[in-house]
Amino acid sequence: MEARPLDTLNKARNKKVLVELKNGKQFIGQIVSFDIHINTVLEEAEERVNGEITRKLGTVFIRGDTITIISPQ
Amino acid sequence: MEARPLDTLNKARNKKVLVELKNGKQFIGQIVSFDIHINTVLEEAEERVNGEITRKLGTVFIRGDTITIISPQ
Amino acid sequence: MEARPLDTLNKARNKKVLVELKNGKQFIGQIVSFDIHINTVLEEAEERVNGEITRKLGTVFIRGDTITIISPQ
Amino acid sequence: MEARPLDTLNKARNKKVLVELKNGKQFIGQIVSFDIHINTVLEEAEERVNGEITRKLGTVFIRGDTITIISPQ
Amino acid sequence: MEARPLDTLNKARNKKVLVELKNGKQFIGQIVSFDIHINTVLEEAEERVNGEITRKLGTVFIRGDTITIISPQ
Amino acid sequence: MEARPLDTLNKARNKKVLVELKNGKQFIGQIVSFDIHINTVLEEAEERVNGEITRKLGTVFIRGDTITIISPQ
Amino acid sequence: MEARPLDTLNKARNKKVLVELKNGKQFIGQIVSFDIHINTVLEEAEERVNGEITRKLGTVFIRGDTITIISPQ
Repeated sequence: MEARPLDTLNKARNKKVLVELKNGKQFIGQIVSFDIHINTVLEEAEERVNGEITRKLGTVFIRGDTITIISPQ
Repeated sequence: MEARPLDTLNKARNKKVLVELKNGKQFIGQIVSFDIHINTVLEEAEERVNGEITRKLGTVFIRGDTITIISPQ
Repeated sequence: MEARPLDTLNKARNKKVLVELKNGKQFIGQIVSFDIHINTVLEEAEERVNGEITRKLGTVFIRGDTITIISPQ
Repeated sequence: MEARPLDTLNKARNKKVLVELKNGKQFIGQIVSFDIHINTVLEEAEERVNGEITRKLGTVFIRGDTITIISPQ
Repeated sequence: MEARPLDTLNKARNKKVLVELKNGKQFIGQIVSFDIHINTVLEEAEERVNGEITRKLGTVFIRGDTITIISPQ
Repeated sequence: MEARPLDTLNKARNKKVLVELKNGKQFIGQIVSFDIHINTVLEEAEERVNGEITRKLGTVFIRGDTITIISPQ
Repeated sequence: MEARPLDTLNKARNKKVLVELKNGKQFIGQIVSFDIHINTVLEEAEERVNGEITRKLGTVFIRGDTITIISPQ
């Protein structure tokens, strides 16, 4: 069977990922869930702007349509 | 069963959350309801801009497609 | 049964609400109807920009996808 | 039965309305038709920018997703 | 039966129309087809910017979601 | 039967077309396929910015929602 | 049978492609999967801005609606 994009997110579950948003913000944390809209929940999440940690957010729900990329770390 | 993003919002019900919008505004309040579009209602909501409380709104319905993140406090 | 976001709008029916748009405009008036797209009709509506009344519009239909928040007054 | 937003547009049929677009333009004319996407046709339509009549367009089809508000005059 | 917005486009078929886009461009030509997304084909189309003819395009397919208005000439 | 917009794209198949994007870029190449979302594949494609060839891309898949117009050359 | 746009992506599977985003960023890597929304996964991906490699990302999931073009290299 051919690979599908959500397989990649599934394999990253509970691992650390980088999520980038359309507004330029970055979140780094453990991906604990996602759905077909790419709504995504990170735990132990940190927000970074220009490489600097700007906030520690703990749990964060990110609305899928605001995401550009998700990259396992 | 695998965790889903809306489970996280469900667990936060009636608790304090931070909601950020595409236009940069922040709302902090008790999340009393949400739906699959991520339309969200907060109670005892305050608007913050750059960390400052700019308005006390009481109950506020936030249209889901304007939301970037929701973070339980 | 769990509360849903549209319940909040329903409870506000015929009462005064503040509606804010993605373009920064505010409308204040009595909410007489809304639908699942959050298309909303206000009566005795006033437009405000930076807190100043800029127009009295009477009845106004607001397309849902242009709305950010609705807050009962 | 509860009022619905499209009832308001229906009641305005063949009457004069103001339509405002996301790009800031205004059209004033008789609303002769609309659909669930809020695609709207005006007749004897005038375009106004900053309150000034900038064009007389006669019949104009306005794509719904470009509309912010429709207000019966 | 009540008039519908697409009836207006249908009546304009093979006649000259003005199409305006979200990016401010105007196209004038004969409308030979359209669909429910308002994807539209013009023939003998000219592009105008600020009232000046900037290009003669012959046949042009315009994606519906980029259109703001269509006005029969 | 009435003409439909996709008929025009179909007739252009394997011929040279100009594709313009919402970000202002132009691609010129042979249109070898498209679908109902207007996702489009060009071959022997060149990118042009302000009339100048800026890149030769060979085969290029263009996501439909980024396209404003397609014009057979 | 007529060619379809996704056939082109399918043929590029496991080969090197250039992906460009609405925000101007470029990613170059091996395309290992995509779906009908054009959600796309690259491996051994590099980000380039103005032709310069700005980051090595390894595996990257790119949300389809942020993509403008995909070009096999």
